[in-house]
Amino acid sequence: MSKPYVIGIDMGGTNTVFGIVDARGVVIASSSIKTQKHSKIDDYINELYTETTKLIEANDAVGKIHGIGIGAPNANYFTGIIEDGVNLPWPTPIPLAKLVSDKFGIPVAITNDANAAAIGEMTYGAARGLKDFIMITLGTGVGSGIVINGQLVYGHDGFAGELGHVIMKRNNGRLCGCGRIGCLEAYCSATGVARTAREFLEARTDASSLREIPTEDITSKDVYDAAIAGDKLAKDIFEFTGNMLGEAFADFTVFTAPEAIILFGGLAKSGELLLKPLRNSMEKNMLSIWKGKVKVLLSELKEADAAVLGASALGWEAK
Amino acid sequence: MSKPYVIGIDMGGTNTVFGIVDARGVVIASSSIKTQKHSKIDDYINELYTETTKLIEANDAVGKIHGIGIGAPNANYFTGIIEDGVNLPWPTPIPLAKLVSDKFGIPVAITNDANAAAIGEMTYGAARGLKDFIMITLGTGVGSGIVINGQLVYGHDGFAGELGHVIMKRNNGRLCGCGRIGCLEAYCSATGVARTAREFLEARTDASSLREIPTEDITSKDVYDAAIAGDKLAKDIFEFTGNMLGEAFADFTVFTAPEAIILFGGLAKSGELLLKPLRNSMEKNMLSIWKGKVKVLLSELKEADAAVLGASALGWEAK
Repeated sequence: MSKPYVIGIDMGGTNTVFGIVDARGVVIASSSIKTQKHSKIDDYINELYTETTKLIEANDAVGKIHGIGIGAPNANYFTGIIEDGVNLPWPTPIPLAKLVSDKFGIPVAITNDANAAAIGEMTYGAARGLKDFIMITLGTGVGSGIVINGQLVYGHDGFAGELGHVIMKRNNGRLCGCGRIGCLEAYCSATGVARTAREFLEARTDASSLREIPTEDITSKDVYDAAIAGDKLAKDIFEFTGNMLGEAFADFTVFTAPEAIILFGGLAKSGELLLKPLRNSMEKNMLSIWKGKVKVLLSELKEADAAVLGASALGWEAK
Repeated sequence: MSKPYVIGIDMGGTNTVFGIVDARGVVIASSSIKTQKHSKIDDYINELYTETTKLIEANDAVGKIHGIGIGAPNANYFTGIIEDGVNLPWPTPIPLAKLVSDKFGIPVAITNDANAAAIGEMTYGAARGLKDFIMITLGTGVGSGIVINGQLVYGHDGFAGELGHVIMKRNNGRLCGCGRIGCLEAYCSATGVARTAREFLEARTDASSLREIPTEDITSKDVYDAAIAGDKLAKDIFEFTGNMLGEAFADFTVFTAPEAIILFGGLAKSGELLLKPLRNSMEKNMLSIWKGKVKVLLSELKEADAAVLGASALGWEAK
């Protein structure tokens, strides 16, 4: 292969991580820059180019890069543009694919973070060999990438797979960041878990180690630590969260009948604390023809590499 | 084309309608038999063969049939089998594709009714030229066929697209025929509309022409006739039904970002009575990036031909 490498770039609100990846999914080298450092997008692209070029030169990869794949918030695969509503320091829409390909002289493909994770999992991780699965990312928000018959679903406009925004509570639901009421993301993201903690602490009177933390400072990590230490209220929060995810996954199944639903992101690392109530609830709510048939799996990508790997897999498709 | 025709067979609980169709979607001739007449599946297949052969001979189509497509309840495209849980007089599973292809000596492909409708609409109807759409059939139940990038979604096991069974009311919902609580189908099918009528008549005290019909005999057609005649309670039933469909369609959109959702079946013929509240509710509940972007269309297939046409389109794929 004359061009045996791809570049994967994971553009987050805080850091932009990038790496050189070979065809077997080995991250040869990686580095990062601060996304928020530059007030002008051109300066950001320039620094990204300079730092990536250093990495390419240091690893004898000059002229050997097949393509660049970028995972970025609200990134549209079809248009190559980052659309509105993202936590980035520059005005949107941002023609990211064009900016990067013009600067690097290398083909670029972009997609959103959750889709990149799905592609990475399919290429290198828990979804190898699966043709029909759904990737759910449980981070600050709830993202998703849907794969049908081996193909990522982009939909008519490139934005398909916003499963964090199915409505789980139509009455009396929580306000979601999207402005609507009762979205899955408002409950089952890391921030959703922290909100549940605040609700439970206010509504209940039983003792909990979480009461020692100022209410507004509680994070999902605090809830996890408390639950692992045996705190009943904290365990109930995971029960509540897993229960709702299970209800949602049963609904997702009637849509695309996936072989597996794969969890990725910080909250997915809660393990059985989350998975046990999730699987119980999913089976309880499942339409009978799918009972016992849909696997819930955890991502197999190493966390440090996952985002870069996922994005890089898209680099092979870039034209 | 040496084999310029296909046979489309629509196998319903009461009637089995079949026809010869050409490549432009013209139904050359059609006929039907009673599905329930035979207590043995072999006798049913024999009559279907005899009657179809008469039609083929009468229309100079002997040796000119490319394939046979069948739309049938719970029919699995991958396996060619009718699975459990259907209102048919024979024990399931039924290896329908094999039975028919063995008898006819012609390749057969089968799928469920709603998928057949989606294929028919894509080939000959309102979805011509659309690559991403969802077909919703509003009949005795609520069925669906999902098309992504021009391909029908079958999922891992062939049963994807049971959108009548997403949960719309998690608390205090109606019992659905599937045994679960609160499914879309329990509200927005023809039988669901009749159930809403019974609920409204019991809960409300205002006058309505529907009170003249014995409660258990009320059909969705009665509700339609009353609404058209200006009956307030009947109009409110359509408002309620359209409202819930709109909520559901907004959720469907976050899944596959379709260009259009196409309605088919008896209830879809209610026109603006249903469409107006449906579209209002869909827009009201839509995630902002899709506001004003998803069309709700009515099937363009002639009702008498639609089921046969839809099934026949599958005949071109039969191998």
